[in-house]
Formats: sequence, C-alpha cells, structure tokens
Amino acid sequence: MSISSTYLDSLTPSAIRSITAKIRDKASQGIKIDSFAGGLPAPDLFPVKELEEITVKAFQEEGGEVIQYAASDGYTPLREEIARLMKEKFDVTNITFKNVFITCGSQQGLNYISKGLIEDGDCVVCETPTYVGAIDSIKAYNPTVIGVHMDDDGINLEELEAVLRGNTVKFIYLIPDFQNPSGRSMSVEKRKQIVELAEKYDTYIYEDAPYSLISFTGNIMPAVKSFDKYNRVIYAGSFSKTIAPGLRVGWIVADEESITKLVYMKMRDDLQVNNIAQRQVYGYLYNYNFDEHLATIQGIYKERRDCMLQAVKTYFPEDTKVVVPEGGLFMWLELNPSIDTLQMFDYVFSKNIAYVPGTFFCVGEKGLNTMRLNFATLDTDVIQTKIAELGTLIKSYMEARK
Amino acid sequence: MSISSTYLDSLTPSAIRSITAKIRDKASQGIKIDSFAGGLPAPDLFPVKELEEITVKAFQEEGGEVIQYAASDGYTPLREEIARLMKEKFDVTNITFKNVFITCGSQQGLNYISKGLIEDGDCVVCETPTYVGAIDSIKAYNPTVIGVHMDDDGINLEELEAVLRGNTVKFIYLIPDFQNPSGRSMSVEKRKQIVELAEKYDTYIYEDAPYSLISFTGNIMPAVKSFDKYNRVIYAGSFSKTIAPGLRVGWIVADEESITKLVYMKMRDDLQVNNIAQRQVYGYLYNYNFDEHLATIQGIYKERRDCMLQAVKTYFPEDTKVVVPEGGLFMWLELNPSIDTLQMFDYVFSKNIAYVPGTFFCVGEKGLNTMRLNFATLDTDVIQTKIAELGTLIKSYMEARK
Repeated sequence: MSISSTYLDSLTPSAIRSITAKIRDKASQGIKIDSFAGGLPAPDLFPVKELEEITVKAFQEEGGEVIQYAASDGYTPLREEIARLMKEKFDVTNITFKNVFITCGSQQGLNYISKGLIEDGDCVVCETPTYVGAIDSIKAYNPTVIGVHMDDDGINLEELEAVLRGNTVKFIYLIPDFQNPSGRSMSVEKRKQIVELAEKYDTYIYEDAPYSLISFTGNIMPAVKSFDKYNRVIYAGSFSKTIAPGLRVGWIVADEESITKLVYMKMRDDLQVNNIAQRQVYGYLYNYNFDEHLATIQGIYKERRDCMLQAVKTYFPEDTKVVVPEGGLFMWLELNPSIDTLQMFDYVFSKNIAYVPGTFFCVGEKGLNTMRLNFATLDTDVIQTKIAELGTLIKSYMEARK
Repeated sequence: MSISSTYLDSLTPSAIRSITAKIRDKASQGIKIDSFAGGLPAPDLFPVKELEEITVKAFQEEGGEVIQYAASDGYTPLREEIARLMKEKFDVTNITFKNVFITCGSQQGLNYISKGLIEDGDCVVCETPTYVGAIDSIKAYNPTVIGVHMDDDGINLEELEAVLRGNTVKFIYLIPDFQNPSGRSMSVEKRKQIVELAEKYDTYIYEDAPYSLISFTGNIMPAVKSFDKYNRVIYAGSFSKTIAPGLRVGWIVADEESITKLVYMKMRDDLQVNNIAQRQVYGYLYNYNFDEHLATIQGIYKERRDCMLQAVKTYFPEDTKVVVPEGGLFMWLELNPSIDTLQMFDYVFSKNIAYVPGTFFCVGEKGLNTMRLNFATLDTDVIQTKIAELGTLIKSYMEARK
C-alpha cells in the first residue's frame, strides 16, 4: 500500500534523469561513460575556495543567527545585489530588491508560477524544442501545452499569435538566451514584439534565463523583461550555471504585488531558501570578481564549443545540420531523417557514450532525427576523441539500416 | 497588473509570520521586543563551530563535485544515518536508506503529501489546536479540514473515528510528541490504535515529528510509524530544532514506492536539497556527538520550561490553566474565559511583549482565551521578568474590562 492519487500515479521519472540513472548504474559497475547527455556545468570551474572562505566568514561573524529561521522572500543583501545585476547586465531598470524573490533554483520559480497560475482548461505555450524539465514541471498542473516552432532568431511570432488567438494561454514559457536545447537566441526585435503580444492577448511570459551570462561573443542581450511596460514578464534567473547548481539559488523578478503572492506560497511550501547558500552567492557577487569568473567560464566553454563543432563537422555524416550556439552549454544537431536517435541510443550507450535524444525536448512534433550534446562538461581532448567515435557509430548505425 | 488566479488571490500571510513582521518593524525603529511568539529554537545552541569544520572539510575533500547537481532523493550517507536514527531512537525497524527521502525542511514534506494526495472533495483531519503553518500548507490544496479535540494523552479517538466514519479523509495530520502548540504527547496505546483506525478507514497518517528528540525526561517515545504494519504512516522528521533551521533539512520515511513518487515530484518542483546542508547534517550525525548535543538542548530548554512554569504560576491570574510540556518548545495556556487573547494582543505588544493568540492554532473552535508561549528562545532571567510583566498586563487588562 503506497500513497496514491490520479496526480501521483501519473508521474514518471524525468526523461533525462533516467539517462543519468543508466550512467550511474554503469559507473557502479566500474564502467566510465563519456556523457554528452547531462545539463551539468563543469565542476572544475566552480569557485570552491572562495565559497569556502565566505562560509567560514559567515559562521564566524554571524554565529548561530546565520542558521536561524530567516525571511521567506530571501536575504536582503542578496536581493539587492541581484537587482543591481539585473540593471547592469540585462537593462532591467526601475527595480529594487523588493522586486526580487529568492528561489531554490529557477526550477522552483517555474513550479511556483505553474502552480500559481494554471487553472482548469488553461493552455501554456512553449518553444519547441524546449527544456524537458520545464515541460514536466508545467504538465504537473494539467494544462494543454502547445509547442511553437523556432526560427534562428527565436520563437516564430506568427505561429505564436495564431495560438494566442485561439486559446486561453496562461503563460508563454521562453528561454530567450542560448536556449536549451537548441542553443538559439531571440532577437531584440522579437523581444519587444512578444511583450506586446502578451499584453494584447492578456497573458504572461515566463522568461527562463539560466544561460544568459554565458556568452561567447561578450554580447549579453537585454532581457525580455527590460521591454516590459505592463508587468507581463516574470523573469527567472539562476546561479546554477554561473556559480554552482548544488547551492540551489535562483531568483524571480516581478512586480511587488506578484512577489508578495509568491512569498505567501513559499510560507506554505518550504518557508525559505538555505541561509548559507544565500550568503555564499551574495558574498561571491559582492566581494569577489564575478565578471572575471564569467570571463573564465565563457572562455573555456567557447573553446569546448569550438572543439565540438570542428569534430562534428569532421566526423559526423555530411548531411548533419548544426545550430552553432553563441553561448550556453548545448549544441543541437539534426541528423539524416532516416535516423531515430531514441532507437539509436542503446547502441551508442553500449559503447559507453551518451547523448540526449532530441525527441525528449519536442512538444507536438517528433524531432526523431535530432539530438542534444552538452559541450561544457568534458575536456577538449575527450570531446575530440568521443565525438569522432560517436560520428563513426552513427555512420555504422546508418549503414546497418540501409 | 500582477499575476492572479483563484488560488493566488486566496493566499494570505501566515498568521505567525504577521506577528514576526510586527516585531521586525519595531526592531527597525530600535525597539526590542521580548518575544514568546516565535517558533524559533535558541541560536546560541546551534553547533556553529562544528558545522563550519564540516563545511571546510567537504569543500577541501570533494572540491567542485560537492556543489554539482546531485540526486533528487538525497545524499545517500545522510539517508543511511537517518535510517539508523529512526531505528535507534524511534523503534522504526525494517527500513533502509531507500525508505528515506530528504526534504527542504519538514514543511516541504507536508506540502508534498498535501499536493500529492488531496483531491476534490477530500477531507484532512488534524488535532485542534495544531501547528498553524501546517493548516495553511494543507488548505492550499482546498480540502475540508476537520479538527478533532485532544485529551491529555493525545487526539480523542472516539471523536476521530466518528469523523473517519462520516467523511472521505485523505490523511490525519498528527504531531504526536510535545505537540505544537499544546505541548501534549500521545500515549503508546493511542499510537497503536490510530494505525489500526487508519487501516480500517483506508486513510493515511502524516506523523510530523520535529520535537520528538527534545524530551525533558529522557524518555523518547516509539514513533506512530513504528506500529505501522500497513504502510499507512508517512513519518516526517526535521533537524530544524535539533541542529539548526536555516539549513532546511528534513526527511520523510515511507515505503519505497511512495518515496519514488515523492522523488518524481521533487524532480519537477526544485530538483534537490542543497548539497552542503546535507553534508553538514550527515557530518554532524556521523562525526560529532549528537546525543551529547541533544542532552545540552534538553537541559537548557528544561530549565527554561521550569522557569516559565514557575513564573506563570506566580504572576498569572490564579485561574490560568497550564499544560506542562515534557519536551519541545511551547507552553499552552488557557486563561479566564472572559479574555480574548487576540484582542488583548495589541495592548500587550504596545508594552513590547509578544505571544501567539491561541485561536490561530484552532480548527473548528475558537479557543479565544488561549495562548502559546515559546519558552526555548529567551534566557531564564528574561523569562522571569517578562512573564511577570505579562502576568501583570493580563490582570490589568481583565480589571479594565470588568
């Protein structure tokens, strides 16, 4: 007799975490998998020494109070730093710390907005392909999820408007910068236009922006939120990719009234975010050189992106299409239409290489011949070798099916 | 234009946090409130030095991996330690780490169970009075909440059975040890019987046990879960009162299948609990003397309980009824029926003393003449002085209303 309900019994493991589990299984048998599958940033780049120093200082200066119950909206100095960051990096002006709400990672922000907004009969719109963990989180509240195709400069606005016209869309889920999985970014012009569409069709935009600071060109785009005159955009940020994911610190930027409602949710759900993690992020932003750290990450990830791109061009079948990402962690590939990457997965995995079948990210389309590769976690020599192997495996898989 | 829905617009701040906000307001004007209102443990008892050592060691030994993404079910060594603790302290045998799920405080555990189980038309039963934060969390999912009265040895089982007979009760929310706010504990006999009732009426018990280890007699009772032959009891523990609340580490014990469903929820909601906090708790349980630490807390809280009890008997109106708590943080008082403690609050607060009006904790009854006092946070000399003042204030308030 286990707990049971329509909701509970409908839940399945997230598709990507099921791959992670397979990898862990092999690891427990002593087999090393070279994985392009994870959404992981590279742990050798985390500022471990600095976070340790900040933690020691917090314990020593604040004593027991640093681990007492604390405010549900978050640690004020951190909220202030984030408000500054939003202005400085993303042109989101006219905000104070009161517009910033600290979350347990940006996943929690999306969960709160989905739980808070979705009612019976609602639709949610997302890009297709999009982050599979977002789809899972949104679907837990039972809306109809409609995928809208992307152009190279972001979501197709004509198709979006047609969907908005015909449905009660509660919000549009967007990853405007270095999108997961496609690596694409939305043009400034589209950012302005989509805010107007949200206002016109009385809906919201959830701007999920975990990768925005990981730009390979140095160009960081103004947030969709920066064009929001109507309080139509809920912006969600995360330090998982720029500092470290295990801290579980993200944030939401919205109007004060919306923040108040989210805080009331937090009082019911889990009270507050871990105090030390909030001190760690604040201390790092305030007392260390975050920009220099970003430059390091950007440099190394760019090198790895370049390496992967070169290897894919060299070793993959000639008709492979690649979206070249200008930032973020992921490369999106379209293979020959005859290939089903989901079916091919076990064959590749038996040779100890992993990727994510692109179909996991697709909404309302199959995308069977697509795959997502993470270029951020592995060293260039491993990327070089393993992409070569993967290319050979794909070719022999195609050959065997002729 | 802020975000809006039936659900969001129904939310209000938690009653106790509204008192906390008042206290913070006065503090910002430089006025010190001696508060018996909070649910706070005493921060001078938190093992700050030890947690600092553990953190430094974790950063130095594990490097970046210690703050990488991690498993949604929790840090395995911590889950193993908790399984051991459950056997050793609460007679919950036949479990392994696979029956333990790490939560962001026990508040999150209750939120998951409420969200997971409650469906349209369901009832949830709780003790009255009970923890107001639990009522808020449960009510967010729209069940009918029915309060069942307590005897000195816990919930009244006849009244409970009548409710179970007449309603679709999804679960019974219980705090069996040193209950918040009443300080009462449930007898072993009732623990056995309530499990049978849950089985008979096809319902679950949510056993909320944050205070169980804070016993003033040395006597720690077997958990309700220890009598559970049917997987009817979901046990929720917390380190907020025994180590520190700002870490946000709690746990759930249930059958493996139920744990799996909770993990699927976590993958959607916030992925995982902060890694460092899990290392801190594990390290503290494994490498330090947790029992000695508990003995210290028990000793100091007992001294404070004794001091408050003595002062209440000396300075409060003679007809005040006190439930003497044998553990935990709270003392529950019943004053003369003519007193409305909610109405009296502002008068007492204007003299810079705070308590929680008992009516906040009551479900289906008013309890207007009751109040909850926290004896754990303040030093005995402050307790002595301020309870004397509070007693005088109550008397003069009564006098003025004659």
